[in-house]
Amino acid sequence: MSKKNISLSVIKRLPKYYRYLESINEKGIIRVSSKELSEITGLTASQIRQDLNHFGCFGQQGYGYNVNELMDELSKIIGVDKSYNMVLIGYGNIGHALYKYKSFSDLGYEIKAVFDKNTDLKVKDGALEVKSIDLLEDYLKNEKIDIGIIATPKKVAQDVCDILCEGGVKGIWNFSPVDLKVKNGAVLESVHLDESLFTLTYFMNSPEDFIF
Amino acid sequence: MSKKNISLSVIKRLPKYYRYLESINEKGIIRVSSKELSEITGLTASQIRQDLNHFGCFGQQGYGYNVNELMDELSKIIGVDKSYNMVLIGYGNIGHALYKYKSFSDLGYEIKAVFDKNTDLKVKDGALEVKSIDLLEDYLKNEKIDIGIIATPKKVAQDVCDILCEGGVKGIWNFSPVDLKVKNGAVLESVHLDESLFTLTYFMNSPEDFIF
Repeated sequence: MSKKNISLSVIKRLPKYYRYLESINEKGIIRVSSKELSEITGLTASQIRQDLNHFGCFGQQGYGYNVNELMDELSKIIGVDKSYNMVLIGYGNIGHALYKYKSFSDLGYEIKAVFDKNTDLKVKDGALEVKSIDLLEDYLKNEKIDIGIIATPKKVAQDVCDILCEGGVKGIWNFSPVDLKVKNGAVLESVHLDESLFTLTYFMNSPEDFIF
Repeated sequence: MSKKNISLSVIKRLPKYYRYLESINEKGIIRVSSKELSEITGLTASQIRQDLNHFGCFGQQGYGYNVNELMDELSKIIGVDKSYNMVLIGYGNIGHALYKYKSFSDLGYEIKAVFDKNTDLKVKDGALEVKSIDLLEDYLKNEKIDIGIIATPKKVAQDVCDILCEGGVKGIWNFSPVDLKVKNGAVLESVHLDESLFTLTYFMNSPEDFIF
């Protein structure tokens, strides 16, 4: 099975498939056809089969996919079968919301430490204290951290990103409204709230322009 | 100028251009070439010219784009030149963070009311009170609301979405980890945090698979 040369759009759909499978698994559904997946996802059945074939996930003709097996396979591909140590930098409103977001920790993504410029902030309802951002570099020397979450103001985001990459972090999850440059082989995924809201407004003003 | 048949990927890049222009405008830069935009954005200069040409934004050969004019033009296309009344449904961690996120209100996106199942929650540092979700339907009959932000648990998200669409809301900005169906001509934009984190993990595990 080769995973090479898979387009970004296919990859972006994998978490979506995983989420759908989770939701039908919760309902006790054991098998699902690409046609059924198509009805839920709005993608065509042939698109779904093609996407999953990329990763060696083959359904059986007239029988469909075993939900549990497909979830297992996808979780390995996405990497949800492992656990991840994370640090959160920036404990403002977004940082606080991410810290409290339970779904991630249930899936093995654990925030081990929180850093901010303002160390008077306490992490509510938890044992963690907010550490000074000045301690981040040393912290990364002593701890194995996989993912750095950046939820700082944009003017310091690149500096924080540099410290994280130099400290051996392999993934940057960025919420600051700026495009960061990563190094040392780290990968970057950004959630740009402003871009998302602008995209919504664009379609509200010109819904007829939309083509897939 | 026709705006028809513009692909989603072009449209998704417009807010990005707008953000770049904002950042260089803040630095007092008056003109920018597609080559300079290319250096900042990582897109090719010809891609940028092609994208902007779709919308009738033409730079001058050897002279580039006037930053202010291009920002004005893009803000009209994206719809950032108007103001929007919003309601926020769900005042948990994500809802709270969105309510406090200043950048939106500075741009004319104003949260006029907050609704939750739990009306004991107070909106901190603000004059707004959290209204009962039962009052949403009536509220929408009396107020002109453009955008509904859904930050509820997933099991109630579709019901809330239905009430918003039936109440005449034109845009749904969804943070609940579920794919919603909109009606009455409303448009939907979702921020799926779980999918974003899974995408990051995928690339951390298989960075060599990535192609554009």
